[in-house]
Amino acid sequence: MKKLYVVGIGPGDRDSMTGAAVKALTEADLIVGYTTYIGLVKAAFAGDEDFEGKEYFETPMTKEMDRCAYALTQANSGKTVAMVCSGDAGIYGMASPILEGAERFPEVEIEVIPGVTAATAGGALLGAPLGHDFAVISLSDRLTPWEVIEKRLKAAAAGDFCIALYNPRSHGRKDALEKAVGILLSAGVDAKTPAGVANSIGREDATIILSRLDAIPYEEVGMTSTVFIGNSATYIDGVRMITPRGYKKG
Amino acid sequence: MKKLYVVGIGPGDRDSMTGAAVKALTEADLIVGYTTYIGLVKAAFAGDEDFEGKEYFETPMTKEMDRCAYALTQANSGKTVAMVCSGDAGIYGMASPILEGAERFPEVEIEVIPGVTAATAGGALLGAPLGHDFAVISLSDRLTPWEVIEKRLKAAAAGDFCIALYNPRSHGRKDALEKAVGILLSAGVDAKTPAGVANSIGREDATIILSRLDAIPYEEVGMTSTVFIGNSATYIDGVRMITPRGYKKG
Repeated sequence: MKKLYVVGIGPGDRDSMTGAAVKALTEADLIVGYTTYIGLVKAAFAGDEDFEGKEYFETPMTKEMDRCAYALTQANSGKTVAMVCSGDAGIYGMASPILEGAERFPEVEIEVIPGVTAATAGGALLGAPLGHDFAVISLSDRLTPWEVIEKRLKAAAAGDFCIALYNPRSHGRKDALEKAVGILLSAGVDAKTPAGVANSIGREDATIILSRLDAIPYEEVGMTSTVFIGNSATYIDGVRMITPRGYKKG
Repeated sequence: MKKLYVVGIGPGDRDSMTGAAVKALTEADLIVGYTTYIGLVKAAFAGDEDFEGKEYFETPMTKEMDRCAYALTQANSGKTVAMVCSGDAGIYGMASPILEGAERFPEVEIEVIPGVTAATAGGALLGAPLGHDFAVISLSDRLTPWEVIEKRLKAAAAGDFCIALYNPRSHGRKDALEKAVGILLSAGVDAKTPAGVANSIGREDATIILSRLDAIPYEEVGMTSTVFIGNSATYIDGVRMITPRGYKKG
């Protein structure tokens, strides 16, 4: 059987991977992924006998289509392949492009292995910021027009959703988070709404920031950050950001 | 050190747990949770030496506050306690109520261990239904007025979010999903929008249903179901529900 796993490795440390993810990576002849994620896998399994002689194929961030084509072609040639994604395989991950490309390789069986996404891993570091209904929005406009992102932010504000913002800020998009905050404030979200930042989730140097919507320290938000905005019931108890599970009174 | 872990065990089978979840459960003297989840833990670690002599405390579903009080009190008395939640600890899980109750127990260190939530685990079974921005909404009105749920559904529709619906239907709320679908249709979501159902995720008898918004077979949706509604770009390729990661054209 020709097999391709699309594996969510979570934040990247071995303890954050599921048993199923470890099994798929162990079974694979070839592991394919973005350079940074391949580095995480190699570090997580350093010294592990099962990974001696493992073949790797890495490409820079913007080369998803090359990675997909290579992974599918290699699986079709008979290798057991694992395509790795940070976090979950389906949330802004490689499950979509792999499945979109899979039609041309009907003999390859594709199995998606879910993982711990940054909304939950970062949420755990901050406390329980997503304890009630929430929206996940990426601020990257590389594949999505900014107008769509803006529409989603306004809708999340109108729905009083807790929000997890992925890709909040990078070298090339220094103002994305600030623009998003401006949209939320204009849409009526209270400036005092609790906001939190989780940086470098799953790594030794992980940090969190507890703040409020109008006071997020943008300079401390970067490529490894996930940003959390509360709903109208969220509060900070001093050390944690907590969204109650329910509305005790209507 | 007095320690209380709030552990997301994912769908419940051992392979879906993270290494950190397994470590916390192994370390715990006492495991506390809803009866069904305690059953999953016992099944996952049946025959495991580390779990011989493990103490368990289980309560019915609606007794969250009893569970929290017991877990915190026992941790404060010196036991290492693990409070288990299905899926993630923070997503409609016990992290919020534990942290809300933690103020009275300042000596207890609380650590939230994230897990694979149904949005990602069910998504993996269906393909990649949440490949772009998405909203997670619970249809349970036990702790949330229906008006709030309705507002969130309308907002998710306005934002063209993919949607994962938790607690879509139960014996006591047979019409919740049908009502929610009606709200989405009234809010302008296309009746032909792909919809999927994942039942009994993580179990031997897991099943999926691929359908469309106006044709979900309500009778096949129950307590173990998670329902997925696509965005305007989602499609079904015959065997899978796929939401592309981006909008190639504006």
